[in-house]
Amino acid sequence: MTQALLTDLIACLGAPHVLTGADRAPYLTDWTGAYVADPLAVVRPGSTAEVAEVLRLAAQRGVAVVPAAGRTGLVGGLMTRGGLMVSVERLNRIRDIRPEARVAVVEAGVILSRLHEAAAALDLYFPLWFGARGSAMVGGALSTNAGGSNVLRYGSTRSLCLGLEVVLADGRVLNLMNALHKDNSGYALKDMFIGAEGTLGIITAAVMKLVPAPRAHATATLAVRSLPEALVLLNRLQQATGGLVEAFEYMPASYMRRLSEARPDIGEPFTPRPDVTILVELGATATRDTTPLPDGSLPLTDLLETTLSDLMEDGLVLDAQIARNESQRAAMWQRRELAAEITFARRPFIDTDVAVPLDAVAPLMEGFEARLQAFEPAAEMMAVAHLGDGNVHLTVFPPTADPEQADRIVEMLEEEVQRLGGTFSAEHGVGLSKRNSMRRRKDPVALAVMAQIKQALDPDNRMNPGKVLP
Amino acid sequence: MTQALLTDLIACLGAPHVLTGADRAPYLTDWTGAYVADPLAVVRPGSTAEVAEVLRLAAQRGVAVVPAAGRTGLVGGLMTRGGLMVSVERLNRIRDIRPEARVAVVEAGVILSRLHEAAAALDLYFPLWFGARGSAMVGGALSTNAGGSNVLRYGSTRSLCLGLEVVLADGRVLNLMNALHKDNSGYALKDMFIGAEGTLGIITAAVMKLVPAPRAHATATLAVRSLPEALVLLNRLQQATGGLVEAFEYMPASYMRRLSEARPDIGEPFTPRPDVTILVELGATATRDTTPLPDGSLPLTDLLETTLSDLMEDGLVLDAQIARNESQRAAMWQRRELAAEITFARRPFIDTDVAVPLDAVAPLMEGFEARLQAFEPAAEMMAVAHLGDGNVHLTVFPPTADPEQADRIVEMLEEEVQRLGGTFSAEHGVGLSKRNSMRRRKDPVALAVMAQIKQALDPDNRMNPGKVLP
Repeated sequence: MTQALLTDLIACLGAPHVLTGADRAPYLTDWTGAYVADPLAVVRPGSTAEVAEVLRLAAQRGVAVVPAAGRTGLVGGLMTRGGLMVSVERLNRIRDIRPEARVAVVEAGVILSRLHEAAAALDLYFPLWFGARGSAMVGGALSTNAGGSNVLRYGSTRSLCLGLEVVLADGRVLNLMNALHKDNSGYALKDMFIGAEGTLGIITAAVMKLVPAPRAHATATLAVRSLPEALVLLNRLQQATGGLVEAFEYMPASYMRRLSEARPDIGEPFTPRPDVTILVELGATATRDTTPLPDGSLPLTDLLETTLSDLMEDGLVLDAQIARNESQRAAMWQRRELAAEITFARRPFIDTDVAVPLDAVAPLMEGFEARLQAFEPAAEMMAVAHLGDGNVHLTVFPPTADPEQADRIVEMLEEEVQRLGGTFSAEHGVGLSKRNSMRRRKDPVALAVMAQIKQALDPDNRMNPGKVLP
Repeated sequence: MTQALLTDLIACLGAPHVLTGADRAPYLTDWTGAYVADPLAVVRPGSTAEVAEVLRLAAQRGVAVVPAAGRTGLVGGLMTRGGLMVSVERLNRIRDIRPEARVAVVEAGVILSRLHEAAAALDLYFPLWFGARGSAMVGGALSTNAGGSNVLRYGSTRSLCLGLEVVLADGRVLNLMNALHKDNSGYALKDMFIGAEGTLGIITAAVMKLVPAPRAHATATLAVRSLPEALVLLNRLQQATGGLVEAFEYMPASYMRRLSEARPDIGEPFTPRPDVTILVELGATATRDTTPLPDGSLPLTDLLETTLSDLMEDGLVLDAQIARNESQRAAMWQRRELAAEITFARRPFIDTDVAVPLDAVAPLMEGFEARLQAFEPAAEMMAVAHLGDGNVHLTVFPPTADPEQADRIVEMLEEEVQRLGGTFSAEHGVGLSKRNSMRRRKDPVALAVMAQIKQALDPDNRMNPGKVLP
């Protein structure tokens, strides 16, 4: 049966696009390296029609299907034993960019940074922005409803997507490809397939929102006394600028210490190391903010400087560095974007992705740290956060790799998060790694409704089986 | 059987909240008056638990259920013959407002203007804003994913909702009540129930986003030569202000003429009547825009004046009136918000609610007007639009009431809209009135998937049957 499927797939896609045996090697792991997939084959369809044909063939043979895009996921979403891995990498056309309508019509295999470049060439901006943007693809970002550093201003992937094309389990093609900001024609199917991690179908194309390119940025690294003061600071900055804050990234001492250990070449911004380091970036499109002044300075940078100087007088900012050029700005961002590298370079680690309401971030950090220290004094904790979204990535480095202990630590964090009205899964997706949390923490009726939808659309449970739902 | 159900309902809710016979009268029509419902009874549960019990009783007896909120809908969503109408009016508590987290936890029966007032008391703003806000309720706005005048800046109801509570067909309560800006814990159930118009369950409560209250508005009425020039004008205003445009409402000569006929007391802003009248409003939260200048004027108003004076020099604005106080601002808004009244006051009328990409609005208007004139020269057309969203409400006044001719006119409009990549249903919902359009224009695979979801969650088709799906 397997051989017959492979023969059919080769007939459909051509032998170079049906990879078996050792040829599958580049596709078997994601960024964490924590899961190793063993697919029957990796196939690389070149069009939506070919994806549909692949899914029909898989349905005929009753074989499971796992989609793969840039493989920068962090939750084991690619894992399979014996399923067919469908890579969307050849669906890599930017079909159209319409500057008047401010949309890009793209296929699932387009790498985010290519879309950034294509938009920039038209003085537009695609706001989805995170460290892996040079490898991550649109399809993966949509499947996991990826977040990143600009969510505060522009929203997550779901809110950047206007239209979607999806191939369903039986090979039908669902066409929701419009470019509208208002569309109330029935159930929000687009939103349902976004974030479903391939368990309901494979996303093959999308209409993504573009926004006017910020014509100026003003970026600074700030030393702050405490997390609660950082939140007051965020409000003050939003008030002063009228919501121009694009990123507000939290790097506590635990993060700076680990960065310093792992990458001593980078250097720290402040000595002595403050309890809290914040990376803030404003972005502006308004003529009055972006037209250089007679002395060559930017009104936006002046606005940031004036505001920070007020905040320093008030004692909310202890010290500040303002980026004077693009290379200083890039250096500031590099400190933040090394988060994944410095996490995964030290093993064992327990990686998390929680969000709580803004007013609960400080109680969460304190509550969890106290419990962790009582439970395992030898464990170290590191945090980094998209603070404006209440989204904290807490990493625990336990003394030894012990899956049971690791799960117990995750449970402790979940308990604190749930008590504070938060979620165990903010922006990376559920995949395999958060299924226990889904079972323990998600409303049981919500789980039942999800299972009913899954059953309705994928009755044989062949679409990325074992992911998302417990 | 019917009597047994009524007895059970009275035992559950008390007789004053189970209305039959003539007591049902206030509940039988919506704003259009086009549909008259004939429910078995109207029930008014006072809590989520009572809604759940009502739905369990209805399920036991196999009776259909139709939810009702403020009854300001325009698509016949309340219509039933023999079903049980469940009014959420007594679920009218604002459970909590958390200014730090900028959220309001509200029940489905809270009237929008009450939420506006409660938010304003805390220097916050609930952005959902349309003419019927004094009667419309949160539950109805969520069920229809209502739009309105501020969508350009703040999004539709779906994007203002963080958490949801829904009672399902069998009486189970789905609890998705969180206050998070990022939550990737499984399928986007919240988004699916929003806009489902009661066909998948009854929304009983929600967590709604609040935003910092604009501390200043600047409002103007503008005379413009043409629709394409109005769109250039919108871009120029956004560019100059950095996206502070909260509303950009289009009132062509056809609208002003009808307004003048129906409400001669209101007066027109410009003589002679220009082809295009625009209502524009900026809103600002930034200290620098909202701190009065030494002469008492607002920087925001100055920004609008300066920008408009540049635009008049460039010939894009022919004439402008700037609101100097709240009563002038209210008078400007009144002209726009009389749209429903002046539409429904002349019969017969054909009411529509379409959206196209911004660059397609002018071709749509021209294409449809030409076809309409060829088809029925005696028909008059009137338009009004949330132009920033590409959302046009085209009203046709045919010479006589002829349902077949009316459907043919709607079809002609649909054809133009579809050709331009638009939707026949932008912000009012589908209900009964757009089911033919759903059948004719929606992707057949999308319709099939919606039917699969409906079947999974409401296998007996008892939740607002006959609505939304064709």
